[in-house]
Amino acid sequence: MVRIIFKCTIIRDTMTTTASSPGNLFLCGEHAVVYGYPAIICSVEQRTAVTVTRTDNPSIEVTSAEFGTARAKIEERDIMVTTPNDELAIFLDLVRSLGLPSGFTASITSSIPVQSGMSSSTAVLTSFLYALRNEFSLPIEPSSFYDLLLPLQKKVHGGKASGSEIFSSTLGGFHRIERRDGVMESHKLCEHDLDIVIADTRVHAPTSLTVGYHVPSLIDRRRELVFETFDRIRDITNEAQKALQGGDAHKLGKLINENHHMLQRLGLSHPKLDDCVCEALDAGALGAKLSGSGWGGIMFALVDDEHAEDVRTALERTRATVIATSIGGEGTRVEEHI
Amino acid sequence: MVRIIFKCTIIRDTMTTTASSPGNLFLCGEHAVVYGYPAIICSVEQRTAVTVTRTDNPSIEVTSAEFGTARAKIEERDIMVTTPNDELAIFLDLVRSLGLPSGFTASITSSIPVQSGMSSSTAVLTSFLYALRNEFSLPIEPSSFYDLLLPLQKKVHGGKASGSEIFSSTLGGFHRIERRDGVMESHKLCEHDLDIVIADTRVHAPTSLTVGYHVPSLIDRRRELVFETFDRIRDITNEAQKALQGGDAHKLGKLINENHHMLQRLGLSHPKLDDCVCEALDAGALGAKLSGSGWGGIMFALVDDEHAEDVRTALERTRATVIATSIGGEGTRVEEHI
Repeated sequence: MVRIIFKCTIIRDTMTTTASSPGNLFLCGEHAVVYGYPAIICSVEQRTAVTVTRTDNPSIEVTSAEFGTARAKIEERDIMVTTPNDELAIFLDLVRSLGLPSGFTASITSSIPVQSGMSSSTAVLTSFLYALRNEFSLPIEPSSFYDLLLPLQKKVHGGKASGSEIFSSTLGGFHRIERRDGVMESHKLCEHDLDIVIADTRVHAPTSLTVGYHVPSLIDRRRELVFETFDRIRDITNEAQKALQGGDAHKLGKLINENHHMLQRLGLSHPKLDDCVCEALDAGALGAKLSGSGWGGIMFALVDDEHAEDVRTALERTRATVIATSIGGEGTRVEEHI
Repeated sequence: MVRIIFKCTIIRDTMTTTASSPGNLFLCGEHAVVYGYPAIICSVEQRTAVTVTRTDNPSIEVTSAEFGTARAKIEERDIMVTTPNDELAIFLDLVRSLGLPSGFTASITSSIPVQSGMSSSTAVLTSFLYALRNEFSLPIEPSSFYDLLLPLQKKVHGGKASGSEIFSSTLGGFHRIERRDGVMESHKLCEHDLDIVIADTRVHAPTSLTVGYHVPSLIDRRRELVFETFDRIRDITNEAQKALQGGDAHKLGKLINENHHMLQRLGLSHPKLDDCVCEALDAGALGAKLSGSGWGGIMFALVDDEHAEDVRTALERTRATVIATSIGGEGTRVEEHI
């Protein structure tokens, strides 16, 4: 905490704060989590950053290299949009709820591939809120980011969002998530920087196809198979929690392999995901699995120092988009300015 | 032939012709065909129809329920577009090459799902040309549709098209296709109405992902596996040709099963395709395979009378979009007016 306060002090003199937030991925338990089983979500050291600079006038400008610019003005504590931008409207919605005393400029940069299943939208909302909070000394604790951001995340995802990614993005590390009495509960397990190599298969299927179409059809036809598999995924998740808390990366590798097999059994993988998983394991990964809703998106391989480069090379030969990074590290943070 | 001439005579009195053309699917050999191996393509009794009505003025109007309307005028034998429509522009391109003496209205209807891999765009172009040919008594034989339509098909597909679907859509039945000296050659084998049930998985991957990304990466890494598999696919295609010509649907069923396994081995199937293939076989299909570029799209199951309804029901339980139809029937034809 001391370190962060010190950084804030420097930055307040320049009237500029840059905050960054990690992406997220499912270490284990995705899909089963929809049916009340536990899952473990973790931060990924691919981050989005938002730089906020206070101005002494009521103008607001939000810019993203990808989505362009939105402009607005503070008028009698309300926010009047002057340059609308559909993609960036959500940021002005957030500003509207904060009651800022003056305007600002905000610019967004990201190293999280969009639509890859690493929750880039949550990471950018978290960074934006954290940068505004610090720049305007707003009395909002990171632990209450969830309540502020969940309605926005629901808007981004068309009505449905568990909000688990907000905890993970804000607080970092590994979180156990589980739905109890209709509410998704999140419990931080630990922080560990574990090295992984991610491959983005370039294949993207909407979550609605796996979660809303295939799994329900499978429950209709093979209910026992599905829930036996979910039971095994629950056991894997519980064992993974122990392995994480005990710092046993080898054990964790075996468990994520088994979780991948369970998702294959449910018809939720994809030939390109399986191709990448096989290549990573052949190259010496401790374990490898798809992460997220499946039928495309990303897979990750847990690696040790000795094999990290071999796994990266093997995945690059599949022509997937490859990123060497780590999981389980720091949540939202203020960045020093260069 | 007599039947068709008779129909045309009736229709000329009304100044209206409706022509319809079948969709197409790969019975076997897709993917290998890209590397110079043979494949068998066949007509599917899901059709698009185009109704052309001659007018006594120079106005042209092309309407599709899906894509709206394009309007143009004949001026000094050239075609001037008055209501542009990107999706329908290709039809005016075709009209431009025909030199018509007067205008017409054309309306397009289709029972071929778009983007399903059943070549709906080829079927509609073929029907349009056939209806104009009959209505305006143009001296164009169906055998020369290929030369007229290939440039347009290339335009629709962004530069690349083999044109095999034009033969299949125009002439119907089963065609063996094979690239020789850089040219795709097509040879009609036979006509047979074989009953199939099609399941559209609702998952769509661009052909560029399988043909341009995954297969080349696999050839880089496992050249021998890929070409051994293509060799086996060639043998399957040759055996399928014999089974077709001998009318042996049981043998054909076994061969298409094996072709599906070969595509699985190359990582070109999809869990939902495999799910549908398994359900169809369990319900008594003679054989089942994916058709086309894979990673989604359609699969079909070859069925006998006894099991057709069971297979249909089984596929409907997967929640895919299911169509019971037939393959290998008539090509482009003029339809009676109701």
